[in-house]
Amino acid sequence: MNVSQPVPAAEGVTDAAGGSSSRVPSDHPGISELFALLAYGEVAAFFRLTDEARMAPDLRGRINMAGMAAAEMGHYELLRDALAARGVDVVPAITRYAPALENYHRLTTPSTWLEALVKAYVGDAMAADFYLEIADVLPDEVAGVVRAVLSETGHSQFVVAEVRQAVMSSGRQRSRLALWSRRLLGEATTQAQYVLAEHDELVELVLSGPGGLGQVADFFGRLQRTHDDRMRQLGLA
Amino acid sequence: MNVSQPVPAAEGVTDAAGGSSSRVPSDHPGISELFALLAYGEVAAFFRLTDEARMAPDLRGRINMAGMAAAEMGHYELLRDALAARGVDVVPAITRYAPALENYHRLTTPSTWLEALVKAYVGDAMAADFYLEIADVLPDEVAGVVRAVLSETGHSQFVVAEVRQAVMSSGRQRSRLALWSRRLLGEATTQAQYVLAEHDELVELVLSGPGGLGQVADFFGRLQRTHDDRMRQLGLA
Repeated sequence: MNVSQPVPAAEGVTDAAGGSSSRVPSDHPGISELFALLAYGEVAAFFRLTDEARMAPDLRGRINMAGMAAAEMGHYELLRDALAARGVDVVPAITRYAPALENYHRLTTPSTWLEALVKAYVGDAMAADFYLEIADVLPDEVAGVVRAVLSETGHSQFVVAEVRQAVMSSGRQRSRLALWSRRLLGEATTQAQYVLAEHDELVELVLSGPGGLGQVADFFGRLQRTHDDRMRQLGLA
Repeated sequence: MNVSQPVPAAEGVTDAAGGSSSRVPSDHPGISELFALLAYGEVAAFFRLTDEARMAPDLRGRINMAGMAAAEMGHYELLRDALAARGVDVVPAITRYAPALENYHRLTTPSTWLEALVKAYVGDAMAADFYLEIADVLPDEVAGVVRAVLSETGHSQFVVAEVRQAVMSSGRQRSRLALWSRRLLGEATTQAQYVLAEHDELVELVLSGPGGLGQVADFFGRLQRTHDDRMRQLGLA
């Protein structure tokens, strides 16, 4: 694999929040940390989704989940190349984020195929929300990497029909899965807070854009609201 | 996932073997069978490589193997779209090839990381050889699909350095892995013969190109020779 290939500069990203003055400089140390965090997240998601694919009741479900897992490795490769372009050796850089992400997955191991589907969907959506939020405070060429990863999400749409059908025919499933999805958001928020507590440069990054993330509390508030939208889509609200 | 999206027609493929007269018609029933066989092969490879990634001694090895697995899903998606464009529902079509491919993997489960590396490399190379051979007898638009998959291979290069280093420092490893690679080729050949014995339309397809595969025995002979080349690259010949 060619890790030394530079990432092409992002195409012009319009900045609705008020010009490039709200963006952090491209040499902000938090940027490589952010990429490393996201990169480990993609690798962890790859292995978890592949495990969970084995819970599928049929080959079609197994393949859908495998396709989603494979997409995560594509995201990883974008981030790996972006880190290489910043002169960062990817494996040591990402290893320090392993505990938080492995804890999240260990604490949210699905016990049924429906739980696995909801987790895949919620995880994908939370990642997309986070990528979208963070892109707004990043300098253009860095935001380009994040947006490229984001544009690659959406492989989890196959989940919606299957979960909706299950919860429409069973109120008990609906309650169980609604509780499950709240637990997913809760554990993700907890682990995100641990990560921020241990990485000052990441906190600085997410706080540095006045038109962007603003306060961390607002950020988690917005994640909560978009999570609620997703729950409605799944028939779990 | 959008399975109904038609595959764009292949760009002009030059036919060194003597013009399009040596090619089978694009409605040959063996073509969908071939795509189905290859598609299941990609899915099976995805799951096996992901399993074997867990045998890696470190995160770097695990990620390399995961990247290879993810590439197999990309190949699967090309073949799935090609089948959809031919009006074939992919899951039932590929299911009939599951036994042969699962048998191959069951009979060649690696017991060490080095065996896993050699299997990944040999499997990738055998698939590439096969794709290259078969493309020559297919009509242009079909050959385009096969060549697109082929152009996506080559993720297994990371294996060569690691295996060469291991076999150079241990004659015992070298003998073990040489035996292992012969077993891989043997089991692949056996399963390929079972598949051909049960699918007349595939035999017809591989025999139909006078400038292409020619006789099945010749085909297996060529696979053997390119396998020997690969063993030399790995330091196992």
